[in-house]
Amino acid sequence: MTPDRFRRLGHVLIDRIADYREQLPTLPVRAPTAPGDVLAALPPSPPETPDDAEALLADLDRIVLPATTHWQHPSFFGWFPANSDLSAVLGDLASSGLGVIGLSWVAGPALTEVEQVVVGWARQLIGLSPAWSGVIQDTASTATLVALLCARERATGLAFGQGAPRTAVYASSHAHSSVRKAALLAGMAFREVRVDDRWRLDPADLEARIAADVAQGVVPAAVVATTGTTTTTSLDPLAEVAEVAGRHGAWFHVDAAMAGTAALLPECRWMLDGVEQADSLVWNAHKWLGATFDCSLYFVRDTEHLTRVMSTSPSYLRTAVDDRVANLRDWGIPLGRRFRALKLWFLLRSEGAEALRVRIRRDLDNARWLEARVRAEPGWEVLAPVHLQTVCVRHRPDGADDDAVDAHTLAWAERLNASGAALVTPAQLDGRWMVRVSVGALQTEREHVEALWDAMRANATSR
Amino acid sequence: MTPDRFRRLGHVLIDRIADYREQLPTLPVRAPTAPGDVLAALPPSPPETPDDAEALLADLDRIVLPATTHWQHPSFFGWFPANSDLSAVLGDLASSGLGVIGLSWVAGPALTEVEQVVVGWARQLIGLSPAWSGVIQDTASTATLVALLCARERATGLAFGQGAPRTAVYASSHAHSSVRKAALLAGMAFREVRVDDRWRLDPADLEARIAADVAQGVVPAAVVATTGTTTTTSLDPLAEVAEVAGRHGAWFHVDAAMAGTAALLPECRWMLDGVEQADSLVWNAHKWLGATFDCSLYFVRDTEHLTRVMSTSPSYLRTAVDDRVANLRDWGIPLGRRFRALKLWFLLRSEGAEALRVRIRRDLDNARWLEARVRAEPGWEVLAPVHLQTVCVRHRPDGADDDAVDAHTLAWAERLNASGAALVTPAQLDGRWMVRVSVGALQTEREHVEALWDAMRANATSR
Repeated sequence: MTPDRFRRLGHVLIDRIADYREQLPTLPVRAPTAPGDVLAALPPSPPETPDDAEALLADLDRIVLPATTHWQHPSFFGWFPANSDLSAVLGDLASSGLGVIGLSWVAGPALTEVEQVVVGWARQLIGLSPAWSGVIQDTASTATLVALLCARERATGLAFGQGAPRTAVYASSHAHSSVRKAALLAGMAFREVRVDDRWRLDPADLEARIAADVAQGVVPAAVVATTGTTTTTSLDPLAEVAEVAGRHGAWFHVDAAMAGTAALLPECRWMLDGVEQADSLVWNAHKWLGATFDCSLYFVRDTEHLTRVMSTSPSYLRTAVDDRVANLRDWGIPLGRRFRALKLWFLLRSEGAEALRVRIRRDLDNARWLEARVRAEPGWEVLAPVHLQTVCVRHRPDGADDDAVDAHTLAWAERLNASGAALVTPAQLDGRWMVRVSVGALQTEREHVEALWDAMRANATSR
Repeated sequence: MTPDRFRRLGHVLIDRIADYREQLPTLPVRAPTAPGDVLAALPPSPPETPDDAEALLADLDRIVLPATTHWQHPSFFGWFPANSDLSAVLGDLASSGLGVIGLSWVAGPALTEVEQVVVGWARQLIGLSPAWSGVIQDTASTATLVALLCARERATGLAFGQGAPRTAVYASSHAHSSVRKAALLAGMAFREVRVDDRWRLDPADLEARIAADVAQGVVPAAVVATTGTTTTTSLDPLAEVAEVAGRHGAWFHVDAAMAGTAALLPECRWMLDGVEQADSLVWNAHKWLGATFDCSLYFVRDTEHLTRVMSTSPSYLRTAVDDRVANLRDWGIPLGRRFRALKLWFLLRSEGAEALRVRIRRDLDNARWLEARVRAEPGWEVLAPVHLQTVCVRHRPDGADDDAVDAHTLAWAERLNASGAALVTPAQLDGRWMVRVSVGALQTEREHVEALWDAMRANATSR
């Protein structure tokens, strides 16, 4: 595409995105799409000749938008906030425009060093000590895999797969599904540790499971604790877990993917107490903070070990300055790297830390407002402490047994989601269905939470 | 950032990117930056209050651009073309603007189905049969790791890490460094197979190494063949490798990261002959094709096995349509997924296949033109067959011994790169340094290759 055509279409697209963000409140949150609708709207074979430019953009409106679930919608209370702040959108546009690849420092000095600085800013924002160094990964799934690979190699003296003993990873039954997946991909056994009555990892059970493995010759290679679990945002006791992990020489990884953002607030920083005893931590700047997917921050204490596990140095990647610079390819799995730091840089500079804290407090307040309403309403219950921006609720019709409540919960959540008025996520807690309300989209104000609460009651009591 | 401010800054940034692409020929290709320059230009702590909008964009010019190696420059002949076509830049902007995350089909129906369609288009463009299904991964490093994990799990009956036998991966000494890295991360032994006199994997040596492992009880889990190696773009004999891999029940993965694009041309399609016997293939649409990093296409034949290895299904990700749709999170490592298909969709529609073929042929012609000049020039040699767009050259001053030629090669390449006139990559071939000239940036025309050849001779014969 020529620069001139890019100019013309680019201006149209910028305006279209701004319009989209303004129009969001008028759109159904969940896509009212049936499987196959989009497949049927697209030609089965690639075009031989160019499409006219206007057709391209028109198809965003004709095909893509009606089949999109709007994560940026003010009434999006689904899975988690994946905020794409418009400042970060610009930062990412600059990245694609430059088209630079961070194969090595020389291949992108600014790419490398802006990332070092901005990730350092993020470190300071959540109060990690300067003993930590960070790097941008795509997702927490990948960052956790990197952590477990480092743990595995530390536990086996870099000899895994060459007859080294079996290794195990420990995390609570409420840890994110990506922890189990990462353990299996890393070739490590996954041990599910019991939770207490507030869904926090039970350090005594952790101790018992490690002891059982040690007795069998299995090496306890890694313990993963979660600050803000997916289902209830429960907070594992980091200091106690660290003590058990440390005693057994296990790597200690902290999953703060969602809740890391809360640590920007002094009043929430306690949630990370004990983190200085950890070996690694992941925090998704692309969730609540707003840095636009994908921008997952992975912090470690021992960068030498990280690069020992991850580095490769073929001749075509060697440069004269390798002993003086960071080659961030050796800090993760992919060799090629986008200039992802630009979106975080734009976000932090465009908003400033103060305004980010104001927004996060707004979301916490909105969650607590909803919690109070639900608690006060007959037939409704709040199922878990509201530490963060997620409220776990259930509506129990008079006389309904547990199976009936399960069916009722899935039914009213589906009615609500199908209406397009809001999006919530049903999930199981202790084997029974409930509804997670995850507050924190950029545009979500009190009025949207009020409307949600009205819609929840209406859908739970209608048929 | 408000939509209004986004509009204002967005228009400025679009114009700035268009200007940048037009100004590229006037910029030094390699950043004339010293380690630490960018670090020193940035504040050590995050901003508490917002920066004014103009300062943000101004710092792109003041700090980022002077410290950027320009991969989109017409005189970029470095590592590989990582083309970021402006159509794909728009597609990716639309992705960030929508801010949708493909956690599941419901979370982004268009995200999922446009990806299925567009990856299917790509499959047809390189002549893979409908037996293949594809998905977008970030990089070939990750896609190869996924392939080896699938191979490992197939070889061990999904029991790896639980006392299953040791497994090994086989690839030639010219396979990309990411293959060895992926093998080690997957906990598999890596076996380097000999190459023939054209740096092609030697099937007889592959057979011998597998036999040696089998005799030791090591399971030959995967063989990786490369179509277009990094150093010389050599082409492993896929059909012969497939035969050996198949005989031993090993997974057969084809790394066509760079050269997949050549298969758009009927006259180059032979390079993939034998591919239908493979289990998986990776082709980076973000390289020569132009889809903007990151957009790596991973094709497999057995999608059921892929999702068995990669899937997780916690309650909060389950939806009512899971039995009728593809949940692409189960096709790779990350749970969250960007709408990356938009950039490939925009590229293919905006350019059309015909124009892409014309551009690829232009680059092949330019490489052959350079090859002929180098061959005709006294003191210069072309070291490897020019199958694709990479020319491996060496200049040998009269009477210089091999060590002197090594030093000379690194010196003249560094003089050329430091001049900013062009960028080439020194690499080792059979233990001796040479220079790779990788043709194929979007803006590279014959005149740029002519200027490069002049600069090569000038730098190789000056002191």
